Amino acid sequence: MLYILRVCVGNAFVSFIGSEDRTPKKRFSEVQKERREQAQRTVLIHCPNKISEKKFLKYLSQHGPVNSHFFYESFGLYAVVEFSQKESVVSLQNVTRTPSLGTEAAIPFRSRYFNLKLKTPLNQTSEQSSIQCRNQSSPSSKKLFELLCCAESVDDQLNTLLREFQLTEENSKLRYLTCSLIEDVAAAYFPGCTVRPFGSSVNSFGKLGCDLDMFLDLDEIENFSTHKASGNFLMEFQVKNVPSERIATQKILSVIGECLDHFGPGCVGVQKILNARCPLVRFSHQASGFQCDLTTNNRIALKSSELLYIYGALDSRVRALVFSIRCWARAHSLTSSIPGAWITNFSLTVMVIFFLQRRSPPILPTLDYLKTLADRELQPFALLHISVPSPEVALSSCLLSLPGERPHDHGREDTPSPKACLVNATFSVGKRPEIGGGSQCSVTVRHAEDKCIIEGHNCTFVRDFNRIKPSGNAETLELLLKEFFEYFGNFAFNKNSINIRQGREQNKPESSPLHIQNPFETSLNVSKNVSQSQLQKFIDLARESAWILHQEDRDRLSPSNNQPWGLAALLLPSVANSTSLAKKKKKPASERIKNLLESIKSSSTENSTAANG
Amino acid sequence: MLYILRVCVGNAFVSFIGSEDRTPKKRFSEVQKERREQAQRTVLIHCPNKISEKKFLKYLSQHGPVNSHFFYESFGLYAVVEFSQKESVVSLQNVTRTPSLGTEAAIPFRSRYFNLKLKTPLNQTSEQSSIQCRNQSSPSSKKLFELLCCAESVDDQLNTLLREFQLTEENSKLRYLTCSLIEDVAAAYFPGCTVRPFGSSVNSFGKLGCDLDMFLDLDEIENFSTHKASGNFLMEFQVKNVPSERIATQKILSVIGECLDHFGPGCVGVQKILNARCPLVRFSHQASGFQCDLTTNNRIALKSSELLYIYGALDSRVRALVFSIRCWARAHSLTSSIPGAWITNFSLTVMVIFFLQRRSPPILPTLDYLKTLADRELQPFALLHISVPSPEVALSSCLLSLPGERPHDHGREDTPSPKACLVNATFSVGKRPEIGGGSQCSVTVRHAEDKCIIEGHNCTFVRDFNRIKPSGNAETLELLLKEFFEYFGNFAFNKNSINIRQGREQNKPESSPLHIQNPFETSLNVSKNVSQSQLQKFIDLARESAWILHQEDRDRLSPSNNQPWGLAALLLPSVANSTSLAKKKKKPASERIKNLLESIKSSSTENSTAANG
Repeated sequence: MLYILRVCVGNAFVSFIGSEDRTPKKRFSEVQKERREQAQRTVLIHCPNKISEKKFLKYLSQHGPVNSHFFYESFGLYAVVEFSQKESVVSLQNVTRTPSLGTEAAIPFRSRYFNLKLKTPLNQTSEQSSIQCRNQSSPSSKKLFELLCCAESVDDQLNTLLREFQLTEENSKLRYLTCSLIEDVAAAYFPGCTVRPFGSSVNSFGKLGCDLDMFLDLDEIENFSTHKASGNFLMEFQVKNVPSERIATQKILSVIGECLDHFGPGCVGVQKILNARCPLVRFSHQASGFQCDLTTNNRIALKSSELLYIYGALDSRVRALVFSIRCWARAHSLTSSIPGAWITNFSLTVMVIFFLQRRSPPILPTLDYLKTLADRELQPFALLHISVPSPEVALSSCLLSLPGERPHDHGREDTPSPKACLVNATFSVGKRPEIGGGSQCSVTVRHAEDKCIIEGHNCTFVRDFNRIKPSGNAETLELLLKEFFEYFGNFAFNKNSINIRQGREQNKPESSPLHIQNPFETSLNVSKNVSQSQLQKFIDLARESAWILHQEDRDRLSPSNNQPWGLAALLLPSVANSTSLAKKKKKPASERIKNLLESIKSSSTENSTAANG
Repeated sequence: MLYILRVCVGNAFVSFIGSEDRTPKKRFSEVQKERREQAQRTVLIHCPNKISEKKFLKYLSQHGPVNSHFFYESFGLYAVVEFSQKESVVSLQNVTRTPSLGTEAAIPFRSRYFNLKLKTPLNQTSEQSSIQCRNQSSPSSKKLFELLCCAESVDDQLNTLLREFQLTEENSKLRYLTCSLIEDVAAAYFPGCTVRPFGSSVNSFGKLGCDLDMFLDLDEIENFSTHKASGNFLMEFQVKNVPSERIATQKILSVIGECLDHFGPGCVGVQKILNARCPLVRFSHQASGFQCDLTTNNRIALKSSELLYIYGALDSRVRALVFSIRCWARAHSLTSSIPGAWITNFSLTVMVIFFLQRRSPPILPTLDYLKTLADRELQPFALLHISVPSPEVALSSCLLSLPGERPHDHGREDTPSPKACLVNATFSVGKRPEIGGGSQCSVTVRHAEDKCIIEGHNCTFVRDFNRIKPSGNAETLELLLKEFFEYFGNFAFNKNSINIRQGREQNKPESSPLHIQNPFETSLNVSKNVSQSQLQKFIDLARESAWILHQEDRDRLSPSNNQPWGLAALLLPSVANSTSLAKKKKKPASERIKNLLESIKSSSTENSTAANG
């Protein structure tokens, strides 16, 4: 019998046929899931320098169709090959041998990282190697300057910088593949575990060459078991117990660190940093060139990544502005790759988001607003035309069809935090001759999958882009860049805290020079590490940059093509910067710029109280 | 078409129909293989103290038929359950959950070691727990004395001791299961690896409660791959290289030690002893109660185990005598569970074997003789009546049918040491109407599977019991026991080395007090550790025991049933032993016994030169 599922929200019927009607913007969780699945079908092959691409592909396709592939250069030539099916990987592994070495000994390990050898070297005349390699690193400063100087406008400059620095499709694949290879190592002991990338690799703000943060997610291991109730018996695995989750984490990371160090192909420089607040294993994955940090359950960090991903996707100006500000900060040593009193990229990104929330009209919504949207009842996704034996099955099919959800998450009372819950199901079964004579049932679904509480912190926000209205603000990137520098050049850092949850300054709850509220763990300051002198340097440079852009506005009619201009000019060693080296001159230079700024600026944005720390 | 395979040795045709005609004594390799396969289908379950056996079995048989099971007590009640099929284990695992603990944290790990809980405690009145537990330990001294005193003769005493101390079927299963559980841990990283028990657990000389020695065998990993030749390409796994095999061993053991320590359910007290000559990981497997030593590739030790297994199986008196001598040595603290200057059980066993080789006629053959047998052409095992398309297939089927061999070991040129090799194959295909009109082909097979060279040492000996003639010697155990003490009470330890390879004394090549040649690594002395004083203690005790047995012979007509007699008398604290505590009296006592012995003995066996070390 054909049941028609008509899913209603409140009292208003809404019909979707399939999921084709949805907007092309993918949810974060969908992207993660797709990429991960893709990575599991993918292998990494170290190739000889001279190789015929055609023969290489022919050789591999013996094991099944190849979906995509690309080459890149690291320490040698590497290929990333994505098969259509997982089985192809197994087939390839089955014809692969462990190398026999002369004087050295090999530690046998079957992974998806291979070493291809040629039995006889390639005949160079007949088969010209013309492998096209995909670049995996960001452009040099020289190249960047050339590109920026050739741009048509400051807006074009910011978009160019974004295009050149953002992660490419290939680099993203390589990141997910690397996580997947590490997952294989961890899955040896924890079948069903997931190694998830987070941070800049996935939040859409990462630049080529950035570190690869990943965490070992053991939460889903439990879903492996079906928990069949069987009379009076309950079977459990015999396991080791330790006094706390932290000790469990440390032990797990310690052993995985040992494995990576001793067996992990291409994993070098393994450091176990287990006594940190968030214990981690740091290592370098040689073949991909990534510096990796592996932690365990870091769900809040993943949630932060998702939030940035959403902010980055809401308006095309966000990422362009963030990349440029980060690049500017790096050029002036405001950020650093080593830990210390420097501002972090995350802090800078939050500052940009905050700035965009403060525009009028705002370019980005506040986090509280995104949370409010999540709390409302959501529209369900699909009207199903399926042949099912009963309304009950129809209902469960409906739940199954919710994107990003796994069947067993629903209706199970032992699932601690179901991502979607059914509030009210009413069935009205009746003939619907107009669509094939099937019967009809209606189901009211309260779509609460956005609700998310992690370790007591409310991390709920809407995850569906379709439900966030685009901004009515049409300001140019050029204006936003200039205003950003002016805004923070005059921000009352001594009194106020930056808070993207409410989108307005708050009184600082503590005396750190720079206070940026952690969006989820709201009692924390994400920039607690920043020293007064680093903050002052940031302020000075922001003011100088605002001044430079203002000066250019004046001279706009006579641009000399040989001179760096716009964004390029901001990346040059600054007056403030060079004077900060010769510290004695610092104060006057800073004063000079401040005075200049004040003389220039008349109709400023709100809260333009001068900040002198 | 039906080909008849007639397999010839030299020119003489020998026909075997099937393998039913073979003697029931199983080869060592067959036992190992069967036990291992059995262990892989077996699970270990920690049970509640009160449990209904019937319901327990019914619950488990949901996952497939149960071949056998038994219960035992360790720290709680345990069940060892052998399923008929491996799939049943997977099925059981799939309904098993990781425990959720209150304040503690669990390190999730899916093994074959389970913890069964009852949802509600068993109703004690309706279901009386009447679980029969299998004993896993040797009898107490008191119990042993009772049993020995009740025996009918000294021969009966020795056989009783053997029966009480030898590993039971259940204990053997538990040992193989424990290895199999450790193999699962190792196989997480080394798929295709094997953890093999060796030493007393498998050489048929182990007593209940003895340590469980095992080694990680990575040699067969290579057989996983089919090495498909494919054009010019050769695919290898990317692996870590280290400067030597020893370092590879240390790294592998180190990581496995970490895993056992942190994840291994029931593995406690893990010690990594990596700088030893043979690096090892020592741990206690709580549930089975075994003290385990894990090494890597220890093939010579396994070969030694096989040699002892063969010696133990050749004559029923061997094991009875060895068990009694070992028990006697332990009772007098000649052996110890801690390393030191004590004689080892292995040394004692070799001494018994040597003694039995020296009898006239010999009870056991020399190792050199066993090697000579192996070097001869062997009889193949089966005449196959199979329907095959060609003589070539018939031949390969013939090779496949060789017991204990895996198909891919044959005919592959890249196998480093094929266990059986075909020297000469001749086919004479013709009609053989008398057995169904099939055709006939003859194959000459040189059955060289016994050949075994390990690390340059020739460890070849015949592995087929059928080819060793039983001894014509019919001496009683009582006589052999007495003669053993006399023989070694008078052995010229100062001059001579014990050598079971040649079965006769050799001049000592070095000055260690006790010299027993390692059977395979012939330049080594297996008793290098034994001090002069320990050797002297052994000699004194042997003399005293010989004297006690001689005394009993005299008093045989008036045995007082309340007094320990025969073997039981030998296990009592000795005069020599007690005087060794009061050292001043030692010499006279020793002298006294020596004089007594000499006065008693007249027609001694050969080489009865008195030894005073």
